[in-house]
Amino acid sequence: MKPNLLSDENVIITVAITGGAHGKWSNPNLPLTPEEQAKDALECYDAGATVCHIHVRGEDGLATADLNVYNKTVRLIKERCPIITQIGNGIGARVEYGVKVSKSGRRYGQALKMATLEERLNLLNISPQPDMFTINAGTFEFRTNMRGMETNSLFNNPIDFNQKYVNGCKKIGVGIEIEVYDTSHIANIMDLVDMGVFEPNEKLHFSIVLGIKGGAPATVRNLLNMVDLLPEGSTWQVVTIGRYNLRTTMIAMCMGGNIRTGLEDTVYYRKGELVKNNAQLVERMVRLAKEMGREPATIDEAREILQLKK
Amino acid sequence: MKPNLLSDENVIITVAITGGAHGKWSNPNLPLTPEEQAKDALECYDAGATVCHIHVRGEDGLATADLNVYNKTVRLIKERCPIITQIGNGIGARVEYGVKVSKSGRRYGQALKMATLEERLNLLNISPQPDMFTINAGTFEFRTNMRGMETNSLFNNPIDFNQKYVNGCKKIGVGIEIEVYDTSHIANIMDLVDMGVFEPNEKLHFSIVLGIKGGAPATVRNLLNMVDLLPEGSTWQVVTIGRYNLRTTMIAMCMGGNIRTGLEDTVYYRKGELVKNNAQLVERMVRLAKEMGREPATIDEAREILQLKK
Amino acid sequence: MKPNLLSDENVIITVAITGGAHGKWSNPNLPLTPEEQAKDALECYDAGATVCHIHVRGEDGLATADLNVYNKTVRLIKERCPIITQIGNGIGARVEYGVKVSKSGRRYGQALKMATLEERLNLLNISPQPDMFTINAGTFEFRTNMRGMETNSLFNNPIDFNQKYVNGCKKIGVGIEIEVYDTSHIANIMDLVDMGVFEPNEKLHFSIVLGIKGGAPATVRNLLNMVDLLPEGSTWQVVTIGRYNLRTTMIAMCMGGNIRTGLEDTVYYRKGELVKNNAQLVERMVRLAKEMGREPATIDEAREILQLKK
Amino acid sequence: MKPNLLSDENVIITVAITGGAHGKWSNPNLPLTPEEQAKDALECYDAGATVCHIHVRGEDGLATADLNVYNKTVRLIKERCPIITQIGNGIGARVEYGVKVSKSGRRYGQALKMATLEERLNLLNISPQPDMFTINAGTFEFRTNMRGMETNSLFNNPIDFNQKYVNGCKKIGVGIEIEVYDTSHIANIMDLVDMGVFEPNEKLHFSIVLGIKGGAPATVRNLLNMVDLLPEGSTWQVVTIGRYNLRTTMIAMCMGGNIRTGLEDTVYYRKGELVKNNAQLVERMVRLAKEMGREPATIDEAREILQLKK
Repeated sequence: MKPNLLSDENVIITVAITGGAHGKWSNPNLPLTPEEQAKDALECYDAGATVCHIHVRGEDGLATADLNVYNKTVRLIKERCPIITQIGNGIGARVEYGVKVSKSGRRYGQALKMATLEERLNLLNISPQPDMFTINAGTFEFRTNMRGMETNSLFNNPIDFNQKYVNGCKKIGVGIEIEVYDTSHIANIMDLVDMGVFEPNEKLHFSIVLGIKGGAPATVRNLLNMVDLLPEGSTWQVVTIGRYNLRTTMIAMCMGGNIRTGLEDTVYYRKGELVKNNAQLVERMVRLAKEMGREPATIDEAREILQLKK
Repeated sequence: MKPNLLSDENVIITVAITGGAHGKWSNPNLPLTPEEQAKDALECYDAGATVCHIHVRGEDGLATADLNVYNKTVRLIKERCPIITQIGNGIGARVEYGVKVSKSGRRYGQALKMATLEERLNLLNISPQPDMFTINAGTFEFRTNMRGMETNSLFNNPIDFNQKYVNGCKKIGVGIEIEVYDTSHIANIMDLVDMGVFEPNEKLHFSIVLGIKGGAPATVRNLLNMVDLLPEGSTWQVVTIGRYNLRTTMIAMCMGGNIRTGLEDTVYYRKGELVKNNAQLVERMVRLAKEMGREPATIDEAREILQLKK
Repeated sequence: MKPNLLSDENVIITVAITGGAHGKWSNPNLPLTPEEQAKDALECYDAGATVCHIHVRGEDGLATADLNVYNKTVRLIKERCPIITQIGNGIGARVEYGVKVSKSGRRYGQALKMATLEERLNLLNISPQPDMFTINAGTFEFRTNMRGMETNSLFNNPIDFNQKYVNGCKKIGVGIEIEVYDTSHIANIMDLVDMGVFEPNEKLHFSIVLGIKGGAPATVRNLLNMVDLLPEGSTWQVVTIGRYNLRTTMIAMCMGGNIRTGLEDTVYYRKGELVKNNAQLVERMVRLAKEMGREPATIDEAREILQLKK
Repeated sequence: MKPNLLSDENVIITVAITGGAHGKWSNPNLPLTPEEQAKDALECYDAGATVCHIHVRGEDGLATADLNVYNKTVRLIKERCPIITQIGNGIGARVEYGVKVSKSGRRYGQALKMATLEERLNLLNISPQPDMFTINAGTFEFRTNMRGMETNSLFNNPIDFNQKYVNGCKKIGVGIEIEVYDTSHIANIMDLVDMGVFEPNEKLHFSIVLGIKGGAPATVRNLLNMVDLLPEGSTWQVVTIGRYNLRTTMIAMCMGGNIRTGLEDTVYYRKGELVKNNAQLVERMVRLAKEMGREPATIDEAREILQLKK
């Protein structure tokens, strides 16, 4: 699939308001509780976002698989505004401290405890039903700097699990967003097409995720190569984690892609300046879209493009 | 040379205010006379441009090689503001009508009459001396739509001629901008390095020109490939002619490149809306630069980067 | 169009037996007279070549536009064997000596005198009719080392001329091979498609020419980029001039392309060892094809693939 | 790092004689016992191979972590010939049958049981000491067709583990080969350089592994992109699993890379024809190397290039 530098299609702006790992220590403006998330979702909707990508947190502020929290968060968001709700099926990682013990008995280090595959499948039972779920198209070691310390964990996404997840989404009639973190992940998805999990000409919705340690670095060539590998007729957005976020997002929007922003992806608005709130990031993207002759997609347009039921 | 998505270097904004071919029939706001050009140059300087790329016009509004007009234009611009003056050494093409005669005797068509190599070399005698000259790194058939008719002409840039031009520029101590319109043109420049015309580690200043019929089309892959082929330590900007102008320019700025805008490159501000004046285009670029954390370079900074004498 | 690393299609081997510029000073085994060319064509046919790319020479051994020589050469080749005859429409360049005079009156240098557009169009009258003509998809300065001296000349291929040539070929029912020397040349051909000179889904036959000074350098990335830019359904071969010839040809054959070899493209069999005769180069290509599970195409297969009349 | 199409350096031919997963059911000529492996290693050495990549098998013919078998295999090979011994640190996967039980109680399917990280680290104690160990630069789901059934398993290669492995290799003074299966794996290695595990300008030895399900597909673009991402001064070879093996290997050799062949990588000599023995594959590579003007590296040359102690 080729980038289209002339595209004037309305751009679907997704905002990933919270994320599944970092906490208020990274940015005190990160929304954690269902109420905080619903407030940010509404502000972002008002600013022009059409999709809200959701991870939820427990009372300790860390990622949780607790369906009650998911239910409440989705419900509150839906009560506030018609923004499309999208659940990241990785749930997230709980930062655990003192989990390693050296030979001498010294406790040190921290680890990320990832959600189990069962917990992740269980998200399909969230009620009220969200509009979309995100699947992650490959397994890799997710490495991230958390509280100033390199922290690694296995992000396990076996193809059997993804097959089950896609089948589950299709059964309950929700949309699917596919996150690919490297070349090989796109090939994994093509294998799912070959296996009949996706239909031969099914319109797929990809997120090209760049800049996570363990995944493909955020470079223009990586972005371009991955766009070129997508099956014809797909939609795509770029998701860039960290300091490359703004530039790759602008480039993607120039190339006719959709985009994602939000405090999950970047806690800095610009070098040395923390983001005030998610809406601030959405507003910048709307300004940039308008400068290049694109408008933010409406909810109805996005539902049509993403093939979501009305 | 790799793109740098984190570059926060100040961006050199060049404005090509007039161009060498189209006329007020394309956009009535195109500055043609020395006075009009000086006015636009000043407005662009005030808006944040640091380099003014110049082609001049005769009394009939068409491109001319007349040194008097060049002298007057450069002088008037220099009187108004300290913007860096850069002369496009192609001069331009005069549109001629009725130049073809069919077998039946019918006169039809139009042609572009290009300046001769002698006229182009003669630009080195412009007085007051401009700051920079542009060389074009390869020969190709320049095809353009002029007054609604496809109009072709040979843009002749033999390597011997370029060698002479570079030597001429070095002799009088002016800066050189190198326009490359395809992969092969970069190889031509590497040959000039091998021939000793440029020094082995000389810092070169490239314009990657995209979107002209006869040159490389304006695609992200072409842009990226050409950036990767530039010798380490070069500076570069993208110059895109026509409707791809805005998007590729934004992408180049994201990638850490410098940029060029102006009525030579695009007569439309956006689809269906003519540019009001050159400054309007510069202002947009300044807004976009600031959004991504870059500032327009000052004259002094640009003179240092482009290695121009003070 | 994507490379196909699994292709086991028979490979069309074209042999360019003579070329239009260098002489026996480069390699004494270069066939020049009609008789020498016919002998080489037969040997190459016996070795597995299916297409013979032809430039002819006058009695002085230099390129000529003389139709008598063309007629005789084509006739002799056709008498010897059914190899497909393909005329390079550039004709070639006559090396001229002492053509430059310095200011002090010193004669120096040499030049290549290229055939005129009229002479080139006249090739359509060769009798007996050859099977194919080669068009060159763009204008550039052809630079080559001739007798130890860098020698440059304009290789003029205006789009109007190519339009006429394609129309001429179609009128007399001969096949067309399209030589592209850089990215922009492929765009020129796409413009001819847009202009209706080629039909929208016409199967086109491309030669990606690499390694000529003035054209794209012989790199894997350039080859790959140009293959990717070709319209779906095309056939392609790589033509590499000079020392990169063997490697890029092998790579093209691996990628499912057709290939060209011959003394026009390389006078060395390997570093420091002159080619003995054209058949030696064909034999190596046949060995390599067989190693990778491909067979040389037969004349009938090649005529079908290249859509030549029977 | 750029491919070098003119490289005439001697090529290091590695032969991966056995592999860690498939059995004689795939090809009855697969060497399994230490004696069979030593025999094949000698034949390959005689044919021109300089490195032997080793996985060993237990009495049941499946991959084993038993150091006794490793010791015996390495010893027997070293007794036969001076070929460089290289241990794949993944050990391999044992195919297990009937490991899944459906809800109805039906046993079905098969799984690959991978070696543990402890077993893999233990390979550093093999005696006599091998010359090199292979590390795998990233975690992914290794998917393979085994006995006609898609069989998946986690190939776990955490960065902490690789850090330990590299340190272990350096401590005992053995060489390291780095297998990268996608773009992100190269970034993982660059992170190890940043962490000081490898020294800043240490010459690294990469294998670009293509064609494994779960890793990057075997395409020319993937190969080229990964070569371009390698740090300057590295050596590299391509390792392609399955039917793309021959073509990508030839292309790599054309590009100046080293190569690997052997029954681990391909059980077919060509479409429909099983490999007779490992030496047959080495012989083909030697023939192809010679055709392109390269010779197989000698043991001494390879030890120097790979920086192995004498």
